Amino acid sequence: MTTRDLVVKFFFILFLLFISVSASSAKKSFKPKEPCKHIVLYYHDTLFNGTDVANATSAAATNATNLGDFKFGMLVVFDDPMTKDNHLLSSPVARAQGFYFYDMKSTYTAWFAFTLIFNSTEHKGTLNIMGADLMTLETRDFSVVGGTGDFFMARGIATIHTDTFQGDYYFRLKMDIKLYECY
Amino acid sequence: MTTRDLVVKFFFILFLLFISVSASSAKKSFKPKEPCKHIVLYYHDTLFNGTDVANATSAAATNATNLGDFKFGMLVVFDDPMTKDNHLLSSPVARAQGFYFYDMKSTYTAWFAFTLIFNSTEHKGTLNIMGADLMTLETRDFSVVGGTGDFFMARGIATIHTDTFQGDYYFRLKMDIKLYECY
Amino acid sequence: MTTRDLVVKFFFILFLLFISVSASSAKKSFKPKEPCKHIVLYYHDTLFNGTDVANATSAAATNATNLGDFKFGMLVVFDDPMTKDNHLLSSPVARAQGFYFYDMKSTYTAWFAFTLIFNSTEHKGTLNIMGADLMTLETRDFSVVGGTGDFFMARGIATIHTDTFQGDYYFRLKMDIKLYECY
Repeated sequence: MTTRDLVVKFFFILFLLFISVSASSAKKSFKPKEPCKHIVLYYHDTLFNGTDVANATSAAATNATNLGDFKFGMLVVFDDPMTKDNHLLSSPVARAQGFYFYDMKSTYTAWFAFTLIFNSTEHKGTLNIMGADLMTLETRDFSVVGGTGDFFMARGIATIHTDTFQGDYYFRLKMDIKLYECY
Repeated sequence: MTTRDLVVKFFFILFLLFISVSASSAKKSFKPKEPCKHIVLYYHDTLFNGTDVANATSAAATNATNLGDFKFGMLVVFDDPMTKDNHLLSSPVARAQGFYFYDMKSTYTAWFAFTLIFNSTEHKGTLNIMGADLMTLETRDFSVVGGTGDFFMARGIATIHTDTFQGDYYFRLKMDIKLYECY
Repeated sequence: MTTRDLVVKFFFILFLLFISVSASSAKKSFKPKEPCKHIVLYYHDTLFNGTDVANATSAAATNATNLGDFKFGMLVVFDDPMTKDNHLLSSPVARAQGFYFYDMKSTYTAWFAFTLIFNSTEHKGTLNIMGADLMTLETRDFSVVGGTGDFFMARGIATIHTDTFQGDYYFRLKMDIKLYECY
């Protein structure tokens, strides 16, 4: 092998290394196409009506104010089951613990902050999530702002969709969680 | 061109590549000088006094406790307009939906968590923000902990300054939002 | 020095540069071993009993609901001292301002969101933290989702451990804060 051959060969290897290093460095400069983790779950909120302690998984901590007719200011604390399919009675794979409150006087919208707590063979750890639930939209996005355990330092987007609601005491959200930063 | 000339030339190109790759990789190791996005907005909070449903954009969901004389524990839910200038009646370019509560017994301070919801030709998407409002300081910093839509996965700092307050029912904050992580 | 010697020498330097650049670029792909900042503090919560304004540093903004016997829905606002050792009366090095609420009907668990406010010679700035406090576990992890000042844009994990609790009106958490993203 001549010196020139050696140089050409090494440069080719270096070129490949550069491509890979540059690609990972550039991760902040464009929207990543693929999440590093993708989880779809259903959130079931069964509001306490004052008597069904056995079934209820959330309760209003404050009453609605008189600002409009859409429960403005009513704050609900929840410990809700998360299931893989849309059946309330399926075995939960996580709990969602947190709160939401209604925050518009002209329509129903809410604001959520909560932790998804996973404790299964598949996942152990938590995801911390917050955002505005603009219920009138088909889908809306929350921010996944942190994680612990298997989800150490994770970030991403949780897209929610109202799967159903039944009167004032039950509603179900489909939650499509895409993590774009995983360690 | 001799082999030696070739080597020198290639090394010069490689050197330039290294500088650029190293610079982007090092982004976590020093404070970035320039935000990747900068937005200045005014936040207008008009608290419900019990009768002005038409004008009010926030309402107290809890009463103040008796711990001190600075409304400790009073929690206010808001859906407040965000404008480009400091006029309450200017056309809003975003809504701030979330809550704050007073949390000191010896002076006025508050804690905020909210979502800025943009739905204009300029920006579509949300920013999720939280932090302590130490009102006695000229300016104080909230964390922008996540974003969606045009602000996908954004992070940064929202510096606030009390622009004015009028009695118990109106105050205005100047909010200087600098994003340092943008995709 | 021959051309071949020159090539070998340069490649060795390049190799070392690659190692360092690759290592920093790869930071998102594995769990970092060492935090960039580590702070251990004690959080003291002295709940207002209705009369001890001088000593209390937190107060219930809502009453517990009737959903179970574990204070479900009781929301507590706090401005609590953070000390370096576990003595309540040690000089605080930071304040924790935020809230927690109880959120399970079958045992005590809570959900926290708060800001640590540092204003000492050692640190000036804030850390914003949220997460689920599964009190039945020996330790549990909150997410540090942002920071300002000396903690500009920080992220990490705050691991808490119940150091003690005394009846309904005082408890103390050991908080082990590890930042893995520092600027």
